[in-house]
Amino acid sequence: MRGAVIYGPRDLRFEERAAPTITEPTDAIIRISATCVCGSDLWPYRGINPVTQPTPMGHEYCGIVEEVGSAVTRIKPGQFVIGSFFASDNTCPNCRAGYQSSCQHKVFVGDAQAPLLRVPLADGTLVATPDIPSDDLIPSLLTLSDVMGTGWFAADAANVKPGSTVVVVGDGAVGLLGALSARQMGAERIIATSRHESRQRLAREFGATDIVTERGDEGVARIKELTNGVGADAVLECVGTQESMMQAIRSTRPGGSVGYVGVPHGVDLDGERLFFTHVRLHGGPAPVRRFLPELIDLVWNGKINPGKVFDLTLPLGQVAEGYRAMDERRAIKTLLRP
Amino acid sequence: MRGAVIYGPRDLRFEERAAPTITEPTDAIIRISATCVCGSDLWPYRGINPVTQPTPMGHEYCGIVEEVGSAVTRIKPGQFVIGSFFASDNTCPNCRAGYQSSCQHKVFVGDAQAPLLRVPLADGTLVATPDIPSDDLIPSLLTLSDVMGTGWFAADAANVKPGSTVVVVGDGAVGLLGALSARQMGAERIIATSRHESRQRLAREFGATDIVTERGDEGVARIKELTNGVGADAVLECVGTQESMMQAIRSTRPGGSVGYVGVPHGVDLDGERLFFTHVRLHGGPAPVRRFLPELIDLVWNGKINPGKVFDLTLPLGQVAEGYRAMDERRAIKTLLRP
Repeated sequence: MRGAVIYGPRDLRFEERAAPTITEPTDAIIRISATCVCGSDLWPYRGINPVTQPTPMGHEYCGIVEEVGSAVTRIKPGQFVIGSFFASDNTCPNCRAGYQSSCQHKVFVGDAQAPLLRVPLADGTLVATPDIPSDDLIPSLLTLSDVMGTGWFAADAANVKPGSTVVVVGDGAVGLLGALSARQMGAERIIATSRHESRQRLAREFGATDIVTERGDEGVARIKELTNGVGADAVLECVGTQESMMQAIRSTRPGGSVGYVGVPHGVDLDGERLFFTHVRLHGGPAPVRRFLPELIDLVWNGKINPGKVFDLTLPLGQVAEGYRAMDERRAIKTLLRP
Repeated sequence: MRGAVIYGPRDLRFEERAAPTITEPTDAIIRISATCVCGSDLWPYRGINPVTQPTPMGHEYCGIVEEVGSAVTRIKPGQFVIGSFFASDNTCPNCRAGYQSSCQHKVFVGDAQAPLLRVPLADGTLVATPDIPSDDLIPSLLTLSDVMGTGWFAADAANVKPGSTVVVVGDGAVGLLGALSARQMGAERIIATSRHESRQRLAREFGATDIVTERGDEGVARIKELTNGVGADAVLECVGTQESMMQAIRSTRPGGSVGYVGVPHGVDLDGERLFFTHVRLHGGPAPVRRFLPELIDLVWNGKINPGKVFDLTLPLGQVAEGYRAMDERRAIKTLLRP
């Protein structure tokens, strides 16, 4: 089979790789129905995370189970399944607490931009849909593998409640779906931050009530102005830079919460300064597995349509163009069909 | 009158000062029944916080209302009252959210080691007891002004729930009362950290079920060992150093919470490292005012006896010895009677 492999900054190749096989009795092999490019894939693509050797790429996936190992009992060949970028046993104490992305036996699933994928700990990791989905549902179901689950976690970690005033820092796909999540959780006011018209439009479609284009000090001042000088109840940090993190913290009211899901790059927090903000901080790699049953249900019943975040669909063979379009911000997010 | 004034490191004097008077119509003057020395008073006393000019000291107080300003309606002369180290209007959005120590009009009350004290925003700040308390209740009522309210906030910020496994980092008065708070909130297991026999004994009396004497890496390893390798649900950080903060974070399970109330001195948090711990962080200067009605009720009805934390009682005139005894760790906490 052929799949995506990164060799170095902006050197993404679609090349022959060995098809995966069952290596552990708890594995499943799935035939990918759709995969996509993640904002975090751009870190190595842009050379910000070093690429030390040719590395297969892709960690968002859904598809049909081809084969399962001898110890797999819950997942069956022929099912349409979705899983997280961290395989998890879903039985350890951390999984039971709802933090499957800190599973004591977690395995990163990192080679999903390919037609076939081996998923470890299949029983714990994969969740089957009620039936084989129609083709139009597939983009939305695919988002549940990471980007939608991550936006949802940002809102969950920020304690979004019915009536909340919410700020979303970041207009990438995660931020946009963070706005959708906040709306679904009953937020009354959702202030999105974006300077890009197409992203502003999608943010509004997903539920944003206000758009702030300013950043840094000016962005904070604008948000304070919109919230009677107090700050927001809940702020979703969906970027991962020092500037975005400080903007998030400073936009939050005392006793309010920041949910941060942008993988921090060079972020450094001054303990004393944080102390006097009275802000709650929670985040990390999203425990997508926790949310899969609920989010599958919402998509299946047409309550949410997070698949709208894909504004470019390409055959998997054109994966390199998919990265380029996102790198150049021509596309919000690229869907790939094998 | 005579009151405590700090001049520089270990130079604490009891000297003549002007008696306070009503300066704003929202003020009250109270005659102090008891005051005390706070762990945070030791920061300037030890020269860690600079002392740039002679500064009156003391921010924990209770006593009888002598006089009120013309705009004070809720508080009456003759009442026995307790207030926080931050005066607050108790009506602004931050107060209404329960963060009175971030009140939009907050005023620090910093000269309570004296027989008379001016309390700004008296209606918002002070809470009266049901009646004039008997003398034996005064130490416990005094703790509600800061140290007990702060230990309670640490437990509240760390989301202590019935059945929780809790770690308390720090064996100062706040940490010890954090253990008492966790027990009162229904924690099942309370692991206190202390190397001092008298403090270990008090921790156990207040509800600690286990004592850990190790610090740093060894302390974390011991706590992991006591929690099946997972970490605690809730960790109370009651010190404020880099070492104690990292011990707190690393002792918490993914999805668990650190409540931090030790004023951070030189604490610096690496965003990426924090991200992958999945730990919740919340803290700051305790919004003591939020807890006063509930805690007064618990003390009044004999449910808690936080006054046990005072192991030295001196006449106010000997305030300098009260500081020395705490600085040299001969005393956990010094109560002062004018």
